[in-house]
Amino acid sequence: MTLTDIAIVGVGKIARDQHLPAIAEGGQFRLAATVSRSGGVERVENFDTLDALLEARPGIGVISFCTPPQVRYEGARAALEAGRHVMLEKPPGASLSEVEDLRALAGEKGLTLYATWHSRHADGVAGARAWLADKRVQSVRIDWKEDVRVWHPGQVWIWEAGGLGVFDPAINAFSILTEILPVPIHVTGAELRFPSNCETPIAADVSFAGPHGLTATADLDFLYEGDPFWTMAIETDGGMLTLTQGGAVLEVPGDRQGEGWGDQPGIHGEYPRLYSEMARLLAAGQSEVDTRPLTLVADAFMLGRRVDVAPFTDPTLKET
Amino acid sequence: MTLTDIAIVGVGKIARDQHLPAIAEGGQFRLAATVSRSGGVERVENFDTLDALLEARPGIGVISFCTPPQVRYEGARAALEAGRHVMLEKPPGASLSEVEDLRALAGEKGLTLYATWHSRHADGVAGARAWLADKRVQSVRIDWKEDVRVWHPGQVWIWEAGGLGVFDPAINAFSILTEILPVPIHVTGAELRFPSNCETPIAADVSFAGPHGLTATADLDFLYEGDPFWTMAIETDGGMLTLTQGGAVLEVPGDRQGEGWGDQPGIHGEYPRLYSEMARLLAAGQSEVDTRPLTLVADAFMLGRRVDVAPFTDPTLKET
Repeated sequence: MTLTDIAIVGVGKIARDQHLPAIAEGGQFRLAATVSRSGGVERVENFDTLDALLEARPGIGVISFCTPPQVRYEGARAALEAGRHVMLEKPPGASLSEVEDLRALAGEKGLTLYATWHSRHADGVAGARAWLADKRVQSVRIDWKEDVRVWHPGQVWIWEAGGLGVFDPAINAFSILTEILPVPIHVTGAELRFPSNCETPIAADVSFAGPHGLTATADLDFLYEGDPFWTMAIETDGGMLTLTQGGAVLEVPGDRQGEGWGDQPGIHGEYPRLYSEMARLLAAGQSEVDTRPLTLVADAFMLGRRVDVAPFTDPTLKET
Repeated sequence: MTLTDIAIVGVGKIARDQHLPAIAEGGQFRLAATVSRSGGVERVENFDTLDALLEARPGIGVISFCTPPQVRYEGARAALEAGRHVMLEKPPGASLSEVEDLRALAGEKGLTLYATWHSRHADGVAGARAWLADKRVQSVRIDWKEDVRVWHPGQVWIWEAGGLGVFDPAINAFSILTEILPVPIHVTGAELRFPSNCETPIAADVSFAGPHGLTATADLDFLYEGDPFWTMAIETDGGMLTLTQGGAVLEVPGDRQGEGWGDQPGIHGEYPRLYSEMARLLAAGQSEVDTRPLTLVADAFMLGRRVDVAPFTDPTLKET
């Protein structure tokens, strides 16, 4: 099988931790080039700008964006205008309106646009969706807690407007929730806790509702020490479903699926599935752009009450 | 021609100022009942709750919601579930996700759902859209300024989470902009000025971008004294377009359309057109739910930097 040439734009933590290994191991793509101002990957051509890559390497048909959301749109639009297929890290943009713009452009150009949600590919998610399909969901409780100092060291963009703060991890929970629930859900309120020196919240409570009395709550905390606590519990007329370890472990009455992360907390096995899905979309000539997780976040910001909390200083930052 | 029975839910300022006269004069609908806790309309049956109306008056096939956005979803869902067509004041809900839910439900039920944007029916808007269709838009400047104490006396819900604050009027500008621009536009940043005692902003600056260097700015102010200043100016390769008086007056090189509001500033002629459009949608068995204006607002909240400003006390409120 021929490998498809792909380029990575933005060679930061998520690219090195997840994208590069997933591409190397996946057997669908070949990393043909990178775009990074701070250094690329050994033995792979690196460009300082996306424009330089698009001009110099017309044969690279697929561009995967790992840049922060605040700068994703301009690059993605340029890539689509240059006739390249595009894959976007989550969240697919800093605004819903820019993602709609990209969706329309990809449609006009007949190109594949894949807005990825890696957590939807955690080991327990497909089983959760199947199990819930014929249940009546009564309530959902999400706890999504991690230590930003451990999981996002030095990532200043998280605290800048558009970086989403605690919703950067929480959108993973929302991507799972919208994937597995058999009914729609909407935000009814939120409390957003903004450190006085940050433009995004460091913690939040969000409440949701759905048809026929369904309620959900999300307790989100970005200063939680110890192993990440990425959990959702769903009460149904057929008993309780839990997804733990970020969706890697599913438990329902009489069944447990997923091996979990053992002594290595984190994301396992999700990114290779994203690249498999991208290969499938390319072969089928399709796009996949589901903005529901980002819509829930935008709704929480629009509906949320804001509360000031203590300033946050990231000890992993050299300068703040 | 037979009049279609319609009920109004929420008999507040906008219902009395606009909906009731529009229904009375329009020749398409007959006000058959109201739902209001604080008093209805003379010689029209009033119910304390929507549920009571839905049960007592199965013959009323159309329900028009004039309630504040925070409570619109539950009523609209109940009406659709009871098989009634639904018309929603702007904004169509307090969250995007709830409007998507209603859109899906109306589709399943084969009912008409009309999310109205009254400003799109101002006298100059259709002409603006037609004139812009073959132009290249370079920049847009929106100024949307009014005195909340004059235009929203006693409307506490505006300052409560989900009430949008200054975006309650500004969404009118966004509804016009998304209607007339020939290209998509997205939010790139915002400064949101929150009075320290309010959950929503009283003023904001929003910046937007679109394809090929298009930029837009919106200067929004809810404490602007004097006649409302509801204006947008659009620079194009064919000259400057201005919409003033909330879209009632259009000026382009060599042409001026719309009589304007004379010595009576405010909304003129828009609501009768909403009810005509509702009659057309009903006859055609269609829905119209365009969430782009609310998406721009949600994006501004999600992307916006928040600034604290002086507390706001509405002198028209009896209690705050």
